[in-house]
Amino acid sequence: MSGLEPLDPDFAPRVRASFGRQAFMRTIGAELTRVEPGEVEIVLPFRDDLTQQHGYLHAAAVTAIVDSACGYAAMSLAGPGAGVLTVEYKANFLSPAAGDRMRASARVLRRGRSLTVCVGDVHAESSAGERHVVTMIATIAVLPGRAEREP
Amino acid sequence: MSGLEPLDPDFAPRVRASFGRQAFMRTIGAELTRVEPGEVEIVLPFRDDLTQQHGYLHAAAVTAIVDSACGYAAMSLAGPGAGVLTVEYKANFLSPAAGDRMRASARVLRRGRSLTVCVGDVHAESSAGERHVVTMIATIAVLPGRAEREP
Amino acid sequence: MSGLEPLDPDFAPRVRASFGRQAFMRTIGAELTRVEPGEVEIVLPFRDDLTQQHGYLHAAAVTAIVDSACGYAAMSLAGPGAGVLTVEYKANFLSPAAGDRMRASARVLRRGRSLTVCVGDVHAESSAGERHVVTMIATIAVLPGRAEREP
Amino acid sequence: MSGLEPLDPDFAPRVRASFGRQAFMRTIGAELTRVEPGEVEIVLPFRDDLTQQHGYLHAAAVTAIVDSACGYAAMSLAGPGAGVLTVEYKANFLSPAAGDRMRASARVLRRGRSLTVCVGDVHAESSAGERHVVTMIATIAVLPGRAEREP
Repeated sequence: MSGLEPLDPDFAPRVRASFGRQAFMRTIGAELTRVEPGEVEIVLPFRDDLTQQHGYLHAAAVTAIVDSACGYAAMSLAGPGAGVLTVEYKANFLSPAAGDRMRASARVLRRGRSLTVCVGDVHAESSAGERHVVTMIATIAVLPGRAEREP
Repeated sequence: MSGLEPLDPDFAPRVRASFGRQAFMRTIGAELTRVEPGEVEIVLPFRDDLTQQHGYLHAAAVTAIVDSACGYAAMSLAGPGAGVLTVEYKANFLSPAAGDRMRASARVLRRGRSLTVCVGDVHAESSAGERHVVTMIATIAVLPGRAEREP
Repeated sequence: MSGLEPLDPDFAPRVRASFGRQAFMRTIGAELTRVEPGEVEIVLPFRDDLTQQHGYLHAAAVTAIVDSACGYAAMSLAGPGAGVLTVEYKANFLSPAAGDRMRASARVLRRGRSLTVCVGDVHAESSAGERHVVTMIATIAVLPGRAEREP
Repeated sequence: MSGLEPLDPDFAPRVRASFGRQAFMRTIGAELTRVEPGEVEIVLPFRDDLTQQHGYLHAAAVTAIVDSACGYAAMSLAGPGAGVLTVEYKANFLSPAAGDRMRASARVLRRGRSLTVCVGDVHAESSAGERHVVTMIATIAVLPGRAEREP
């Protein structure tokens, strides 16, 4: 738990609805598995069509889920109607993304008025155990006036 | 042009073959459009199934092509059989990824014995002109002993 | 030249005055050598008391001048009274900081309403020529309501 | 504790000796306060001559101690005679560096053959409590053949 209070008690359905509008998450088969105040988890099962030239998951596919987890961790603490936008992120790739599924977990490190800083990690899970694959720091802009698009 | 000499005169087919083995690039519809010594360009046409919640291309899809362009810029200068691995990257998102297609161009900033530093940029192209969407710095490990997998 | 118009015609004396209030720049002996709209240069002569354990300038001393150059490049385009604050930066260290003096040059890559993205580079200069030492991307917050402190 | 075993039982005096050769750390008044396997702490008392234009400690002074802490965390796990070199780092500035002293703590996240990834944080300490000021990810090259210079 991030220890931070959400501004909107209905943050979880709001985050889930926004995730549902991310076509790219659907395309790669990512699932939103946990939404807590300031903490979000997204899981990506291994799929052959998401690999790079050595047969591991492509760094960008793995980055996709931890970037999204960071953005939604920020959104979970924002006011009703607020949108989020990734300003920048930095990722270190610690091990090859091999395994049955990747689990990205992100949490808010600092909530600011307009910028929220999140940290995220991806662990590869397989029958052999789990392995730390990526660590990320992301800066997320929270846009109070920019309501999420409704379908 | 990066002004750097390739160690392998056959760098271009080698880079193209490796790109061809990246299933993820195929999945998102990316094309390798230019391979010069130390410089690589990859293009991603807009597609609805690659978007995020506001209808723009997902940051991760755009990052995917500029990350790959950085890796292949490094590979274009490496010796025969060398593999590349992204150690880390950092991306700043300058404008929404809206437009007909995204063009990622990367070049080697410094070639080291084992680490190569690349810079990359993505521009969105549309009938309205072009717009700078992402800038990236990437650290790429060049692994002489780690031949690229052959199919 | 960054090609961007300053909002304040008196940007140069404003930047110089702010630089003059940075005690740390004085402590390390840095000099502000150029202020153009969206571009700033700061020079740091080599000094033995700024070195790390191998006798090169400490990464942090070199980072100090390029970070400051990025901040002032952003300030040069901001309105009268605006203050700047570094949100985050990322630096790659390309070569040891050896030489007679380090020259940091920064320019604005994208000016936003509240966030400005700058790129900076440090070159080491010596009788043997010059060498690229550091490359940086920095995100700078421009705070219109937060006037620079007057002495 | 990082949970990682040092390769050199005499890591602590080795780290302390190297820190003692960093003239810049002496110049700014930094102290090495803790050396454990994979974990290092450095403290910087507030000093007026290290400030930026708003009267807070300069970002670069604060970055200096957390960068050094990351490098020494990596060195603490390396073999006898190994040197360390910062490849790159990224820092997010979470709060102004105001307070009586800054405490940088770093730990090894992943120890590789030639690259070690560390995370570091700086907390500002004052009578009012403590505040998270900086978070950093750093990539450190460990150079087995490059013995630290002896005085």
